[in-house]
Amino acid sequence: MRGLGRKTFVVSTGFQFSVTHRDGGARRGVLTTPHGTVETPAFMPVGTRGAVKAVTPRDLTDLGVQMLLGNTYHLYMRPGDDLIARAGGLHRFMAWDRPILTDSGGYQVFSLATLRQVTEDGVRFRSHVDGAEHLLTPESAVDIQLRLGSDVAMVLDELPGSGVSESEARAAMERTLRWARRARDRFLAVAAGGEDLGAPLATPGQAQFGIVQGGIHRPLREASAAATEAIGFDGYAIGGLSVGEPVDVMYEVVGYTAPLLPAERPRYLMGTGMPDDLVESVARGVDLFDCVLPTRNARNGQLFTRQGRLAIKNARYTEDPAPPDPECACYTCRHFSRAYLRHLFLAGEMTAATLNTLHNLHFYLDTMRRIREAIVFGAFEKFRQEFRERFSRQSPP
Amino acid sequence: MRGLGRKTFVVSTGFQFSVTHRDGGARRGVLTTPHGTVETPAFMPVGTRGAVKAVTPRDLTDLGVQMLLGNTYHLYMRPGDDLIARAGGLHRFMAWDRPILTDSGGYQVFSLATLRQVTEDGVRFRSHVDGAEHLLTPESAVDIQLRLGSDVAMVLDELPGSGVSESEARAAMERTLRWARRARDRFLAVAAGGEDLGAPLATPGQAQFGIVQGGIHRPLREASAAATEAIGFDGYAIGGLSVGEPVDVMYEVVGYTAPLLPAERPRYLMGTGMPDDLVESVARGVDLFDCVLPTRNARNGQLFTRQGRLAIKNARYTEDPAPPDPECACYTCRHFSRAYLRHLFLAGEMTAATLNTLHNLHFYLDTMRRIREAIVFGAFEKFRQEFRERFSRQSPP
Repeated sequence: MRGLGRKTFVVSTGFQFSVTHRDGGARRGVLTTPHGTVETPAFMPVGTRGAVKAVTPRDLTDLGVQMLLGNTYHLYMRPGDDLIARAGGLHRFMAWDRPILTDSGGYQVFSLATLRQVTEDGVRFRSHVDGAEHLLTPESAVDIQLRLGSDVAMVLDELPGSGVSESEARAAMERTLRWARRARDRFLAVAAGGEDLGAPLATPGQAQFGIVQGGIHRPLREASAAATEAIGFDGYAIGGLSVGEPVDVMYEVVGYTAPLLPAERPRYLMGTGMPDDLVESVARGVDLFDCVLPTRNARNGQLFTRQGRLAIKNARYTEDPAPPDPECACYTCRHFSRAYLRHLFLAGEMTAATLNTLHNLHFYLDTMRRIREAIVFGAFEKFRQEFRERFSRQSPP
Repeated sequence: MRGLGRKTFVVSTGFQFSVTHRDGGARRGVLTTPHGTVETPAFMPVGTRGAVKAVTPRDLTDLGVQMLLGNTYHLYMRPGDDLIARAGGLHRFMAWDRPILTDSGGYQVFSLATLRQVTEDGVRFRSHVDGAEHLLTPESAVDIQLRLGSDVAMVLDELPGSGVSESEARAAMERTLRWARRARDRFLAVAAGGEDLGAPLATPGQAQFGIVQGGIHRPLREASAAATEAIGFDGYAIGGLSVGEPVDVMYEVVGYTAPLLPAERPRYLMGTGMPDDLVESVARGVDLFDCVLPTRNARNGQLFTRQGRLAIKNARYTEDPAPPDPECACYTCRHFSRAYLRHLFLAGEMTAATLNTLHNLHFYLDTMRRIREAIVFGAFEKFRQEFRERFSRQSPP
C-alpha cells in the first residue's frame, strides 16, 4: 500500500526499478534509466570532473561499467553547468552514453570549499579553484543537475561530519529533510514544465533520490527514513557514512537503515567503500555504490586482489613475473607483471595509473558481477563467507 | 656490386628490407624483423621507459603502430637491462609483440647525464636518477641492447652538439666511426656465439644500424657515409640533426646524405620531427622516423591537425563543439569536442594527456599511411604539395 501511494509522486517516466531476486537480505535488481539499464547490485566509478581519472570512456565500456558518478560541485565550478547544458548535457560532453548519477555538490562544498556558511537558505562558500563566492541551495542543486542532464540526481543534504553530538546530528538531519522537501518541490515544478532552466533538458525523465541522514544514531535514522520516504523519491540513499566511523559501526547503521527504506525502490550507499564493505552492505540490502577508492588507490600504486591490497612499489615485487592477481582476467593482469608495473610506478609513468586503474575497476566490477550471480543462484551467503575468508582489509606494508 | 659485397656482413637472419616502390626520391618498402614486418616509410612512437607515455600497448595496436623506439639509457638506468633480460626481454616485459628499435643510449647520456667525460674508451657519466657513475662503451651499448632484445640496435655515436666548429664535428664523426667498428665487431662476436651475455638472447636475429654523423658539413657527411657503409650494417641512420639547426639546413643535409647510403638498406632519420619534416625527408629518401613531438606536445595540450598545431587551452575553444581536426578519424576526434578537451586539459586530468596522445599519434601514423599510399600510386609529389599548402609550422597562439 505504501508503495502504491508513493508511486503517485514518481514523475520520472524514464526511470524504473524492479527487484528480480532475493537471497537473505541481498537483492538482485534492474534499474532502468533514460540512458539504459543497470544490473544491481552495481558499483559506479567516480568521474569527478567529466572523466574517470587516467582512463577513457572506451576503457570503461570495455570494463563493463554500467553507470558513472559525476561530481556536481566540480562540474559546476569548471567548466560550468551552463556550458555543459549548451554542449548537450554531460553524457554528450564526456562521450558517455550510459547512465550517470550526479551528487548534489554538497559533499565537496563541505570538504573542499572554504569559508562555508550554512544557513536555512543553503550553503554559501568560496570556490577552491578561484575563491569566487557561491551559494548552493536545495533548488540550485536541482537546477544544476538538470542542466548536467544526469539520469539520477541527488538532493542537497547537510553533512555534519563525524564525531558530532546527537543534537548536532539531529539538527543536520532535520535541515536535510526541509531541504529535501524544497528540492522535491523544485524538481517537480521543473518536470511539470513550469520552470525555465535556460537550456533544453538534456535528459528528460531524470530521477531524483532522497538521502537519509542521522549519523550513527538509530532514532535519527528512523525518523529521517520515514520523513524522506513521506516526501516520495525515485530512490533512497544512505548518507553520512564512511566518514571516519569504525567499520562495524557502519555495518550496524547500514544494517538497520536499509530495511527502513521502501523495498521496491533502489537503495544507494554513498561513498563506500572497500571491497568487503560492498559485500557486507549488499548482505544488508544495498543496491548501488560509488567510491573513489579503486581509482585513487590505483594512482597511488595500491592494487586490489582477492587476498587484499598489494602495494606495487614494494621491493619484493622487483622481479616478480606474476600479474597483480593471478586469478584476474583484466587487461593489466593478462599482459603485465608486478615487476613491470612496479617499474612504471616508480618511474612516475602515467601509464602506471592507467593500468592500475583498469585493474582496480575490473576488480570492483567483477566483485559486483560475482555478487549478482551468487544472488541469482541463492549462493550469496557462501560467496560472502568465502570473500571474507580470503580478503584482508589490512594495509599492505 | 656494393650491395653484394656488403651482404656478407649481414648476419641478422631475421632481418630483411626491400624497396617495393619508388616515386621520385621517395621509397615505399617492407622491413622484416624478428617481431614482424613494418611498412615503410614508417614513424616510430617513443616508449622512453618501457611505455609510450599516457597510453597502453592496446591503444598503440589500435592506432596501427608498427614499431616502437625504446630508450636504452632510461631502461639501463631503471629497471636495468639485466632485469629486463631475466624477464624475457623488452617485448615481453612491456607486452609489445611488434618490432622495437632501441637507441644506443648515447643521446640521453649527452643530454641528461651529468659530469660527462668522453674518452676513446667510451662515455663516463653520472646517472640523472641517483648520481651513480657509469661507463657506456661501444661494446656495452651493444650488449645492453642485446639484453633488451630489440629488433634493431643502434651503435653508440658521439654527439658534438649543434654550433660546434667543423674540426670538432670532424673529430666526433671520426670517433663515431672508430666506435662503430668496435660496436660491429662486438655485435658479430656475440652473434657468432662467442660471447656470453649472462642471459639467453630474447631476440635472436637482432639487426644493427650504423649512424652517419658530420653535422652540417657535406664533406664530413660524405666521409662518414662511405666509411660507415664500409663497415657494413643492416641499416643506416642519419644522426646529429634536429638539434637546433634551421629547418632548411636540415633538409639540405638530409637531401645530400640520404642518397649516399646504400639504396637497398633502410634509412633512418633519428629524432625527427614536425609532420612536414617527415614529408620532406621522405621526399629525400628516408624510410624510418622517430620523435617525441606527437606524444610530448599532446601532454602539453598541443594537437596536430591538417592545418598545423592547435593549442587546446586557448580561450577561443571554450565552447567549440568541433573535434580537434574535423577531418580526423581517430577515437578522440570521433567522440570529443575541443571544449571538452580544453576543460580536461585545464583541469589537469590525466585523461587529457591520453586523448591528446591518441590524436597526435593517429595524425602522425595517418600521415605516414597517406605517404605510403601516395608513393604506390605515383602521387607523392602531389601529396607533398597539398600537405605543404595546408600545414603551417607556426606555433599556435
